Amino acid sequence: MSAPAPVAGGAAAEGPLAIICGGGRLPGDIAAKVQATGRPVVMFAVKGWADPAVVAPFRHHWLRLAAYGTFLRLMRKEGCRDLVVIGVLLRPALRQLRPDWGTVRVVPRIVRAFRGGDDHLLTSLGRMLEDDGCRLLGAHQVAPDILAGEGAFGARRPVARDEADIALGLRLLAAMSPFDVGQAAVVGNRHVLAVEAAEGTDRMLARIAELREVGRIKLPRGVGVLVKAPKVGQDERFDMPTIGPNTIDAVARAGLAGVAVAAGAVIVAEPQEVVRRADAAGLFALGVTARESA
Amino acid sequence: MSAPAPVAGGAAAEGPLAIICGGGRLPGDIAAKVQATGRPVVMFAVKGWADPAVVAPFRHHWLRLAAYGTFLRLMRKEGCRDLVVIGVLLRPALRQLRPDWGTVRVVPRIVRAFRGGDDHLLTSLGRMLEDDGCRLLGAHQVAPDILAGEGAFGARRPVARDEADIALGLRLLAAMSPFDVGQAAVVGNRHVLAVEAAEGTDRMLARIAELREVGRIKLPRGVGVLVKAPKVGQDERFDMPTIGPNTIDAVARAGLAGVAVAAGAVIVAEPQEVVRRADAAGLFALGVTARESA
Repeated sequence: MSAPAPVAGGAAAEGPLAIICGGGRLPGDIAAKVQATGRPVVMFAVKGWADPAVVAPFRHHWLRLAAYGTFLRLMRKEGCRDLVVIGVLLRPALRQLRPDWGTVRVVPRIVRAFRGGDDHLLTSLGRMLEDDGCRLLGAHQVAPDILAGEGAFGARRPVARDEADIALGLRLLAAMSPFDVGQAAVVGNRHVLAVEAAEGTDRMLARIAELREVGRIKLPRGVGVLVKAPKVGQDERFDMPTIGPNTIDAVARAGLAGVAVAAGAVIVAEPQEVVRRADAAGLFALGVTARESA
Repeated sequence: MSAPAPVAGGAAAEGPLAIICGGGRLPGDIAAKVQATGRPVVMFAVKGWADPAVVAPFRHHWLRLAAYGTFLRLMRKEGCRDLVVIGVLLRPALRQLRPDWGTVRVVPRIVRAFRGGDDHLLTSLGRMLEDDGCRLLGAHQVAPDILAGEGAFGARRPVARDEADIALGLRLLAAMSPFDVGQAAVVGNRHVLAVEAAEGTDRMLARIAELREVGRIKLPRGVGVLVKAPKVGQDERFDMPTIGPNTIDAVARAGLAGVAVAAGAVIVAEPQEVVRRADAAGLFALGVTARESA
């Protein structure tokens, strides 16, 4: 991707960092990390997605998702140039957006982008922001330690069967990648048990639990791996795949052996809590590097 | 595939046709079609899968799934050489099978086959049957008119958006095919909404209905297509993808525009009823030919 070079914290000369906050706790964690380096942050909390408790400790503004004009005005007023987009922002229906005037100006581009699938949409939005003088950064560029490292995060390690499941999952996700789908799949004993599309990872894992209960999946508990990786060519500045403590809980309920994520390409929210829960449940959580020959 | 040439009905000289009956009404429909051509049938009803009401009108034996020895003995006694396998037979857990002595003999081959995924399993079973003097046929070889033809089955036709969704779905299924997964997917407005794995088509469609309800899928009703096609290289003598009246009902509940299946490669159970329900619900149902260039 054409993402700019990493931007270490402490760059006060570059002005405050704007954080567009979707759902979850991750926007607050990243804001705290950035502020700890000495760089101020301004949170742009998206109505209906951001958690008020998460943005409250920081300087912040509330915005509707389509309030692009208002957003640009506030960015200039706050002296922000750099921005990151953090947290869950589900694909909205265009008619629910109630765009402001700044948005109306760019609607034709948004509509064209929507037609081309998610990746295309995100790339278009990134280009639009840059045309308007902003610089879109990836969360990992402002807080590099949020990305999954390589190897096991906790005490448990995968066995050979898990390794084979992980390799199959990574190859499947790579094959599905051109279709703008499939950041996650569940593979058990070399069989693909579930593929994520519109439902998201949590619902996919709940399905595994349910299919085990009704006997449609007959693998014993402790067999099967959640595999998570970004789409090939995905714009890393937007919408990186993420796991967190809730993912570990869902993996445990699904009766899997553990979770494997692409090292350096998946965000791990609340990593200490991820390790604590994985260890408590006897699951592995690890970062892996995809190998073409796998 | 190395499937034998089509075997028209009426081949009384070849002895009765053995039908291994899984779940659903299709085994009975096919038995009736074959008997109507003058060839007798013997049903081998699999305990726990076959419906007693479906096999009752025909000469039949009940068998456990792993009773391979008993099955071979009955095949010889009945003078059968040709067999077809019809209806749902979910992947069983080996420990649930309680194999008989004839099965124990072949267990190492079954275990090896299980390790290699479904296709490998089915191919191995086919070879095993042939080693034991049987001839495994595809349902379409004994009852050719059960396969989907090309074009619309009922009154409704797809619009351009549906055609694009169908083309994307066929390409996705082809890409996933090497992973022994994905006989079906749902595509809406060029986005992949769901991919079928262990849950089966009905549960996948129920998921679409649910995701619409909770607002996770925001497409209007009447947008989206269920696309169904066999895996590339799938042994057509086993486990062909099937649609029937229940599929149409589930497509309607999912709020889709219709269903597209690979012409000549997907079984349509109770076709008149499929057309009646599709027309009543305003859905299209059609057979399509995958084009490489689509």
